[in-house]
Amino acid sequence: MTRDIGHSGPRYTDLAASLPASVPFVGPETQERDRGHPFSARLGANESLFGPSPRAVAAMAAATGETWKYGDAQSWDLRAALAGRLGVSMDNIMVGEGIDGLLGYLVRLVVGPGDKVVTSLGAYPTFNYHVAGFGGDLVTVPYRDDHEDPVALIDKAREVGAKLVYIANPDNPMGTWHDAATMQRMIETVPEGTLLVLDEAYLEFAPEGTAPALDVTDPRVIRMRTFSKAYGLAGARVGYAIGTADLISAFNKVRNHFGMARLSQVGALAALEDEDYLAEVQAKVVVARGRIAEIAAANGLTSLPSATNFVTIDCGSDGAFARAVLGELIARDVFVRMPFAEPQDRCIRVSVGEPEDLDVLASALPEALAAARGD
Amino acid sequence: MTRDIGHSGPRYTDLAASLPASVPFVGPETQERDRGHPFSARLGANESLFGPSPRAVAAMAAATGETWKYGDAQSWDLRAALAGRLGVSMDNIMVGEGIDGLLGYLVRLVVGPGDKVVTSLGAYPTFNYHVAGFGGDLVTVPYRDDHEDPVALIDKAREVGAKLVYIANPDNPMGTWHDAATMQRMIETVPEGTLLVLDEAYLEFAPEGTAPALDVTDPRVIRMRTFSKAYGLAGARVGYAIGTADLISAFNKVRNHFGMARLSQVGALAALEDEDYLAEVQAKVVVARGRIAEIAAANGLTSLPSATNFVTIDCGSDGAFARAVLGELIARDVFVRMPFAEPQDRCIRVSVGEPEDLDVLASALPEALAAARGD
Repeated sequence: MTRDIGHSGPRYTDLAASLPASVPFVGPETQERDRGHPFSARLGANESLFGPSPRAVAAMAAATGETWKYGDAQSWDLRAALAGRLGVSMDNIMVGEGIDGLLGYLVRLVVGPGDKVVTSLGAYPTFNYHVAGFGGDLVTVPYRDDHEDPVALIDKAREVGAKLVYIANPDNPMGTWHDAATMQRMIETVPEGTLLVLDEAYLEFAPEGTAPALDVTDPRVIRMRTFSKAYGLAGARVGYAIGTADLISAFNKVRNHFGMARLSQVGALAALEDEDYLAEVQAKVVVARGRIAEIAAANGLTSLPSATNFVTIDCGSDGAFARAVLGELIARDVFVRMPFAEPQDRCIRVSVGEPEDLDVLASALPEALAAARGD
Repeated sequence: MTRDIGHSGPRYTDLAASLPASVPFVGPETQERDRGHPFSARLGANESLFGPSPRAVAAMAAATGETWKYGDAQSWDLRAALAGRLGVSMDNIMVGEGIDGLLGYLVRLVVGPGDKVVTSLGAYPTFNYHVAGFGGDLVTVPYRDDHEDPVALIDKAREVGAKLVYIANPDNPMGTWHDAATMQRMIETVPEGTLLVLDEAYLEFAPEGTAPALDVTDPRVIRMRTFSKAYGLAGARVGYAIGTADLISAFNKVRNHFGMARLSQVGALAALEDEDYLAEVQAKVVVARGRIAEIAAANGLTSLPSATNFVTIDCGSDGAFARAVLGELIARDVFVRMPFAEPQDRCIRVSVGEPEDLDVLASALPEALAAARGD
């Protein structure tokens, strides 16, 4: 559909020309359009079906008329509140357009063509997308018993001279986690020349003692957290990074300074202040995880212990079978996802939700399993 | 504040290490915090003080409870509506996090270290920020009689082998514009190997006959438009690019697919559908431009004809004097900005607003001028 007018169009960079047009995840709306009808239960994107705090909802609704103003380029009020909560300086916190946006900036700051980056095989695809997008060379280590393997990650980072090593704790897509002592040992062994990216998107769902102590003087690690999960604001795109002041300041070299939506800043601040609601959500998540495990067990399947807002169900066979189960669930209007890599891809991943959402799952899973088995 | 633990921290890319931590604009909230008190009139960022459509406000308010869902990664509904409005295919439209975000992606796709990019001296700083951020080599041509100079821009692009040449029509910060025939001639002369970036952020304020016809088969040009100005949604961060399907598809190589805030998508769609409100805003802008010109004239100053939602006032002397006037206005709680480069920096730039906002300007300007003159 490009007219031939004797002009070849833009000259992309060699890197851009080499990249595929890709998307780390196919969104549920895209799937709904392809299917021609909506899902009955939206359990695939680890969104919070419990919704954001009513205070956040009210604060955003009250501020909609102010949307003519650009957001505050410094996200000052939110950073101040986070700093107070975390006991660090505002200079140690960068707010950005979700962890996805912050990961993109971080990779851009550190990774150039051919630079090595270490992650687990089957870990967060959007991180990998950013690494590829800046020409980095992704090196993976396998999961170990459905957990990311901190020792192997560090060993590999040292071996290849990685600039970044990524781990999510708790992990996505498996829901497993390591305790703070294990993570602290990981931090202590980060090799010279490597930065540890510790993605704590799901931290609020994890047991006490999962997060190592914050130490914003430690140049070996940057932490990433979000309002998308426990705070129920995935659609607002608000994440934050915690690190040394030097590293946090470096984001100002490349970030889209006026990139934060104003209502998102308002909603995140109000959500942060509603600790009671967060506690309610945390309690509901525990109950819902139990319910999903029961549904799995009722179908003869095991599920993995989870420190997140999703439960990973072992379908008991290989990736092909799990993909078939996934397809049959989607055909029954249940939006779920599954791990990408072997052997984790024997599982499907189900986000927690309200009892009625999980009723849909309970109803669909037996049929989906039977269909996948060809019964 | 980084602890010395025998670890040097992250290894930035050479490019990132060379970049300053900078911001293209200092936001009004930042200035208010520095000053210790708020502005009385927010006339510096070319926001729409008339606000977004009440339908957009209502649509966003009604959707706040849905913020737990990620936004649609394809911005399908908004792109479909835009495509219908513009008479092009959805495949010719990319929605992104404001024109700022889209410019960042575009520069990333095309510009690498040492690549030449042409713009006007004193044109949009955020574009320049992105070019520098990807290592591009910015080459500027002067304004001509307070207009960007399409012929000189194209000649320079040909001379240096530029990968991108940028022009805003209407122009920011001068408010001047070229007619469609002039712009079409510019498009027709884009040299092989160069892409014209035509920033039409202010198009809705310009006379009929300002925009050249859309031709999405033409590989020489990409157009950028926004909901931040006429639609009054600066805080929502919604811009869109119009171009060949090949070029639009290339954004999918690098963009943050889930970067759009859900409420922003909702608000932009509702705003687009309220054509009556847009017409009201357009009419108010015309009146307010006239009022600013009158205020300038009452103070013995000339103002430039404007096809935007701001008026550029010639302070009648040099940059030092205009900076003094600007400082005195800010000291009187009037947030305004000014062009960065000579000779345009003899001017200050005042966004339109409601009558009461301009009353503040009318009251402050005589004092500010007197103070700047040392009277």
